[in-house]
Amino acid sequence: MKKHNFYAGPAILPQKVLEKAKAELTDLNGIGLSVMEISHRSKEFDKIITSAEENFKKLLGIPDNYHVLFLQGGASLQFGMIPMNLLNGGSADYINTGAWAKKAIKEGKIFGKVNIAASSEDKDFSYIPKEFKFSDDSKYVHVTSNETIGGVQFHTFPDTGNVPMIADMSSDIMSRKLNVSDFGLIYAGAQKNIGPSGVTLVIIRDDLVQSSTEGITTMLSYKTHAEKKSMYNTPPAFGIYLIKLVTDWLIDLGGIEEIEKINENKASLLYNKIDSGDFYKGTAEKEDRSKMNVTFRMRSEELEKRFVDEATASGLIGLKGHRSVGGCRASIYNALPIESVQELVKFMDEFEKKNR
Amino acid sequence: MKKHNFYAGPAILPQKVLEKAKAELTDLNGIGLSVMEISHRSKEFDKIITSAEENFKKLLGIPDNYHVLFLQGGASLQFGMIPMNLLNGGSADYINTGAWAKKAIKEGKIFGKVNIAASSEDKDFSYIPKEFKFSDDSKYVHVTSNETIGGVQFHTFPDTGNVPMIADMSSDIMSRKLNVSDFGLIYAGAQKNIGPSGVTLVIIRDDLVQSSTEGITTMLSYKTHAEKKSMYNTPPAFGIYLIKLVTDWLIDLGGIEEIEKINENKASLLYNKIDSGDFYKGTAEKEDRSKMNVTFRMRSEELEKRFVDEATASGLIGLKGHRSVGGCRASIYNALPIESVQELVKFMDEFEKKNR
Repeated sequence: MKKHNFYAGPAILPQKVLEKAKAELTDLNGIGLSVMEISHRSKEFDKIITSAEENFKKLLGIPDNYHVLFLQGGASLQFGMIPMNLLNGGSADYINTGAWAKKAIKEGKIFGKVNIAASSEDKDFSYIPKEFKFSDDSKYVHVTSNETIGGVQFHTFPDTGNVPMIADMSSDIMSRKLNVSDFGLIYAGAQKNIGPSGVTLVIIRDDLVQSSTEGITTMLSYKTHAEKKSMYNTPPAFGIYLIKLVTDWLIDLGGIEEIEKINENKASLLYNKIDSGDFYKGTAEKEDRSKMNVTFRMRSEELEKRFVDEATASGLIGLKGHRSVGGCRASIYNALPIESVQELVKFMDEFEKKNR
Repeated sequence: MKKHNFYAGPAILPQKVLEKAKAELTDLNGIGLSVMEISHRSKEFDKIITSAEENFKKLLGIPDNYHVLFLQGGASLQFGMIPMNLLNGGSADYINTGAWAKKAIKEGKIFGKVNIAASSEDKDFSYIPKEFKFSDDSKYVHVTSNETIGGVQFHTFPDTGNVPMIADMSSDIMSRKLNVSDFGLIYAGAQKNIGPSGVTLVIIRDDLVQSSTEGITTMLSYKTHAEKKSMYNTPPAFGIYLIKLVTDWLIDLGGIEEIEKINENKASLLYNKIDSGDFYKGTAEKEDRSKMNVTFRMRSEELEKRFVDEATASGLIGLKGHRSVGGCRASIYNALPIESVQELVKFMDEFEKKNR
């Protein structure tokens, strides 16, 4: 049976990418060795990492005064690295939009003063705040562009003036057009829209690299990785290779503009179904709904459980909501074809008829 | 042409493992999805990570009071994590055996007092020190069990009494029998004997987890990862899957005892060739020679370059010495078949005849 993959992350990868990776898994470009078995200093791997970096610059239009880094430890390590490098006992503004923002805030507090510039905790993180109280002496403003658990997303970012905006874009990077120069630092765990888990993308403006704290452990310093172009130590080579293939795929598809249209269509299809009656109830405020993680509930937990079980039996995988909030969630990242959303909508129609 | 892979790392993986990974790259055990596309909380991935952990316990006979963790950031991040968790302004002993030990020492100094208990820097790290001046108030003793650049290896470890011994075993773990209870903490980047780059194995005794420093960033705390069984955040799933396959392969082969015999044979074959005349000169003291990284020189750099070039043309890949020391190096990790060493010896015979 054909499987439709709605996992929140690690998530679906483009089928073409997986097939290419499979075809050359034991023999990269005829060299007779796997990409996992070659020195990261070899010319073959150098070509891969350079090309992955160039693909990001091209797709996102990244200006020359930014570094594109491939690190390890996921967004979770960035939660700590950012304040270690950029806060250094000072003060920063954080916007609290949900579970992921809270994790970033917790780590920020270890290294300095955290001002919560806005929070949507009053309504269970079901919306994106529109007003912000920024402090005067803030070193940066931290936002979480998309919350996978609450299913909310910034559709416009706050104006932080001269204060660098730092964004956790783990779950929506590369899904829509982005003005990189609005940000001082963008980071993303790869395992939603970029590649497999185990690689973290960091796009950082050079002045933030240069002004970052001295004397922290070498591997946590942005300077280390910017100077060595992500090759201070052995990078996660296979993940970077996959990222190269995913970004190649995205370029072939027509780039960010094209994927943004596809993502709009997928999200509309699914939210229209949810809004077509009162059987399914979207959990997020309409204007702040995520186009990556569509969260919804039904009239009872028992019904939600049956929905997930029957969907799974029909090949629709990963629709259970996050364990901390329950309900249902369909993650519809870049690599998910519109056909999968159509199948899900069909299933939702049928399930509704049977259980009205 | 058949390739023989002597890269120092990322290094050769067992062919059977690569073939299995290839066969199921787009479809893990018939679930219709890649191992890279499934939730790390799914039952399929849980089975993989649990089984990888059990394989290590079985192969190394790890006692119950140790945790087996799969982290990110390589040995390089451990260089910092160890003193951050276990030194905390106190004093530790480090044994300086080469380039890798020096990196560990550099990070230790950021977080406390480092006493060099012994060093082989006087002779370009060509031997393993046999006498150690341990300090009285040491929190731990740090050793690098094998130096990939200098080609030296501890064949017996120092007796550190009640002070926990911590070992960087990145380049020789799983290559020989090991008494885990002699160590407080063992760590290893995966990319030599365990799997692909991007996963770090940490074996840590529970009392060190419990006594580790509070208040450091969550992702750098051993407590975090021990409590959450390596699943605090999304782990490097594909790497852990490969590690599971590599340890399955090692168990099928007959375990550590069997691989140790094979490794002894490979090393003897190659060192015997080196010692058979004065054309090739081993760089390490005989008694401290590494059984993983065989380093040797010839009478001129020009000849060494020709050796590497002609070897490469004959399918013998990765024989260039580390850029910091020059010369030649054959890395003969677990996954390298004895046939590859035989081919190399044959090539060395012929090269010697032509260039005597």
